[in-house]
Amino acid sequence: MGSTGTSQRTRVTINCDMGEAYGSWKMGPDEELMPLIDLANVACGFHGGDPVVMRKTVQLAKKHSVPVGAHPSLPDREGFGRRHIDLSPDDLFAQLVYQIGALEGMLRSENMKLNHIKTHGYLWRYCEASEAHCKAVMRAIQVFDVPMLVIAGTRMEKMAAEMGIPYIPEFYPDIYYNEEGKLMSILRDGRVNLEDVQPKVERIIVHDEVVAKTTGKPVKMNFAGRDFSCCIHSDLPRQFDLLPYRTYY
Amino acid sequence: MGSTGTSQRTRVTINCDMGEAYGSWKMGPDEELMPLIDLANVACGFHGGDPVVMRKTVQLAKKHSVPVGAHPSLPDREGFGRRHIDLSPDDLFAQLVYQIGALEGMLRSENMKLNHIKTHGYLWRYCEASEAHCKAVMRAIQVFDVPMLVIAGTRMEKMAAEMGIPYIPEFYPDIYYNEEGKLMSILRDGRVNLEDVQPKVERIIVHDEVVAKTTGKPVKMNFAGRDFSCCIHSDLPRQFDLLPYRTYY
Amino acid sequence: MGSTGTSQRTRVTINCDMGEAYGSWKMGPDEELMPLIDLANVACGFHGGDPVVMRKTVQLAKKHSVPVGAHPSLPDREGFGRRHIDLSPDDLFAQLVYQIGALEGMLRSENMKLNHIKTHGYLWRYCEASEAHCKAVMRAIQVFDVPMLVIAGTRMEKMAAEMGIPYIPEFYPDIYYNEEGKLMSILRDGRVNLEDVQPKVERIIVHDEVVAKTTGKPVKMNFAGRDFSCCIHSDLPRQFDLLPYRTYY
Amino acid sequence: MGSTGTSQRTRVTINCDMGEAYGSWKMGPDEELMPLIDLANVACGFHGGDPVVMRKTVQLAKKHSVPVGAHPSLPDREGFGRRHIDLSPDDLFAQLVYQIGALEGMLRSENMKLNHIKTHGYLWRYCEASEAHCKAVMRAIQVFDVPMLVIAGTRMEKMAAEMGIPYIPEFYPDIYYNEEGKLMSILRDGRVNLEDVQPKVERIIVHDEVVAKTTGKPVKMNFAGRDFSCCIHSDLPRQFDLLPYRTYY
Repeated sequence: MGSTGTSQRTRVTINCDMGEAYGSWKMGPDEELMPLIDLANVACGFHGGDPVVMRKTVQLAKKHSVPVGAHPSLPDREGFGRRHIDLSPDDLFAQLVYQIGALEGMLRSENMKLNHIKTHGYLWRYCEASEAHCKAVMRAIQVFDVPMLVIAGTRMEKMAAEMGIPYIPEFYPDIYYNEEGKLMSILRDGRVNLEDVQPKVERIIVHDEVVAKTTGKPVKMNFAGRDFSCCIHSDLPRQFDLLPYRTYY
Repeated sequence: MGSTGTSQRTRVTINCDMGEAYGSWKMGPDEELMPLIDLANVACGFHGGDPVVMRKTVQLAKKHSVPVGAHPSLPDREGFGRRHIDLSPDDLFAQLVYQIGALEGMLRSENMKLNHIKTHGYLWRYCEASEAHCKAVMRAIQVFDVPMLVIAGTRMEKMAAEMGIPYIPEFYPDIYYNEEGKLMSILRDGRVNLEDVQPKVERIIVHDEVVAKTTGKPVKMNFAGRDFSCCIHSDLPRQFDLLPYRTYY
Repeated sequence: MGSTGTSQRTRVTINCDMGEAYGSWKMGPDEELMPLIDLANVACGFHGGDPVVMRKTVQLAKKHSVPVGAHPSLPDREGFGRRHIDLSPDDLFAQLVYQIGALEGMLRSENMKLNHIKTHGYLWRYCEASEAHCKAVMRAIQVFDVPMLVIAGTRMEKMAAEMGIPYIPEFYPDIYYNEEGKLMSILRDGRVNLEDVQPKVERIIVHDEVVAKTTGKPVKMNFAGRDFSCCIHSDLPRQFDLLPYRTYY
Repeated sequence: MGSTGTSQRTRVTINCDMGEAYGSWKMGPDEELMPLIDLANVACGFHGGDPVVMRKTVQLAKKHSVPVGAHPSLPDREGFGRRHIDLSPDDLFAQLVYQIGALEGMLRSENMKLNHIKTHGYLWRYCEASEAHCKAVMRAIQVFDVPMLVIAGTRMEKMAAEMGIPYIPEFYPDIYYNEEGKLMSILRDGRVNLEDVQPKVERIIVHDEVVAKTTGKPVKMNFAGRDFSCCIHSDLPRQFDLLPYRTYY
């Protein structure tokens, strides 16, 4: 968790969004990836997944002893949870509780426990833009009493810390960071070259810093002495190319 | 429960399907009915309800101290869960677990517990027609470890008894029964006249029998010494006309 | 149309949003309203309506010889088309063409023609906020080569005029206008008192002006010499209260 | 069409189901296949496709001058239109008219005409099982006044002939036929070996017969002197393996 002690070694994990198929449509090589990851964020049916897909994904995680977290989204299947949709904070709260509860039920049917929660897609931008919505997300997470995975440097991370919600900050090995230690846009700024990923991961582990694309200068990430998790997107190409680097973790 | 003891008085309750609105569409006078019922069966978003409606319905039940059960359905919003949709038993299991889990999450956000489960609409006919699907429904209910409300005289009731799932049999005051003590079709056989409802309820309580429409002869219902529950449909007219009779229960 | 001649008398019509039921959920007293209106704007399944509802609504309009227009929406059933959803202009174009085409097909099955198009709910605000989205809406309407109903004083009206798209400006008898002749918010500013509706309608017909709520002063609406249409919402209370005033039109 | 004359050479075409992606989910290599086929059956949003996908698919067909037909389905996205869903014949009619109209609108936005209609997935089995539903499908097709593609040997083919609806019978090169010249089940009976496809296509063209899997004996298909079309499923593997045989057509 974000507040764990100092003497023990920190743990760096790989988390991956899973179960984003829908009906007859596939998304991501879940079967191949599952044995290679540490934490599975399972879609809850609102951007990807459906009850049948969720059940299979939970069973797959169980087979490989991978802890399962909920990966709730805005209610936006056609936009894959990546579009802005206006919702009141209260209604957003209800949307999230519904999804997380549904996944928890699915886990219960396999005698598993909910391990964590990670918000999907547009939600982190929603939280950056609106404190009230960020608060609603946090309240939904508090209902389930598990830690969250949260992008380092966001309002969500700050609010989780303030509200005493345990969390694990996330690092994105193949997305650029700016001089404030914040994620840049894949669409606008492109993706990190494959040969630069390994040095980037080493640098964050050894020096707790990332080189900002905007300035070329290193930025402290404040992961030192804390567990953190590297996120790999199963629906993007190159996900397997990132995995060799896990030996460093 | 179906297996409760003998010396204590049996309890006759009124249960009602609730929370079947959807988005901007209303369904049933939930606010007026809630104070008058004993058990609320709350729709889980697959035939009626959505996260926002569910939350409001759960809060309404809480306000009136009405225990809340899940009312899951086939995934069929446009058909209100009343149409046959082919699903494998395993897929049906997943659909139900998802919905019940979602409601349990919503209850958790209000510090409430899931009280019971009652299947919606076409599901009981599905179970009559297919033992494998009935079994799937039962397995889904077992995950959550609460009693079910079940129409008396159905395969579901029989299987619940065989599998040791606690249940409360249901009686339908305004629907006709046939000579086997089974519900007849509202569409085909019409509905009980309002003036006949009170004698019907008295008869089932005092004599444990219903007069079959098909033969005009009494049929034993085997409710004697057991709790049972009378179901009122919130989406049908006359729901309030049925309520005066609750004083008899 | 917006560009009709001068010697003939102008025509004032009543238009009403229709067919906004969905599956088992009702919305608005369509059967009672249909004989009383001049133009029906029929929902196309994206905020209200579904194929079965659309067919019944088209048949109802046919029975009462009411011309039918398409009433397309953002793809947002749960939010009834009243929420902002981010879409590119091109994707919005596709959403609208799909819906209007679907309604045109339904009309064709009843040997009817599409009479007009009116955008639903949030779309007019989307167009106020974004010229590119407004253009996309206009392009979608051009595909079908019928006039549009459009709220007077909006960017949509201006762009329709610029692009040579025939249109009929709309007047809202029970919503307040501001000093620029623009609609105010029902939620924020309330609704016109019932006893003030009749004088308001007379004033717009006789003097071509509305009294701004913001200033108490009259504002010219520029309807003089043009057909215009008064909109009544079927999903709001009081719709029948507005109809007596139709004798003035 | 089914009733074309005798002296002219018959035409054998390849048709392919296209546009079955949905939102962010891909389905089938449409871009690679489109230049190689003669007729595109475009999904209309009820089993696959959405307005954005439909528009792209129609534009892709236009680029390669491939005539576009509507490929409507039962309303069953999650089941990809392959499940039984109970609908009245009238409601089925409405579902189909909606979808075909939507595609026709999309074609109109590209200055294209609807070329044909082919029902998707479970619909042909529905029609085999119910004459009333088959009639409803035919009535929906009649609204649009274009020929249909129809699996040879089905009730749909027979009824199209009886009702004077022009149609092109379909042949399935990689699915087995039984002794009545009817398609067998892929799930139960497997698929034709790749090396057997070419001889099968030659045989149907030259001898107008197919070897029944059930008996090993040839069955006449009655394609002689008529145009017919070979169907290739874009969502199944091997679709490209079937294309070399198109040189025989």
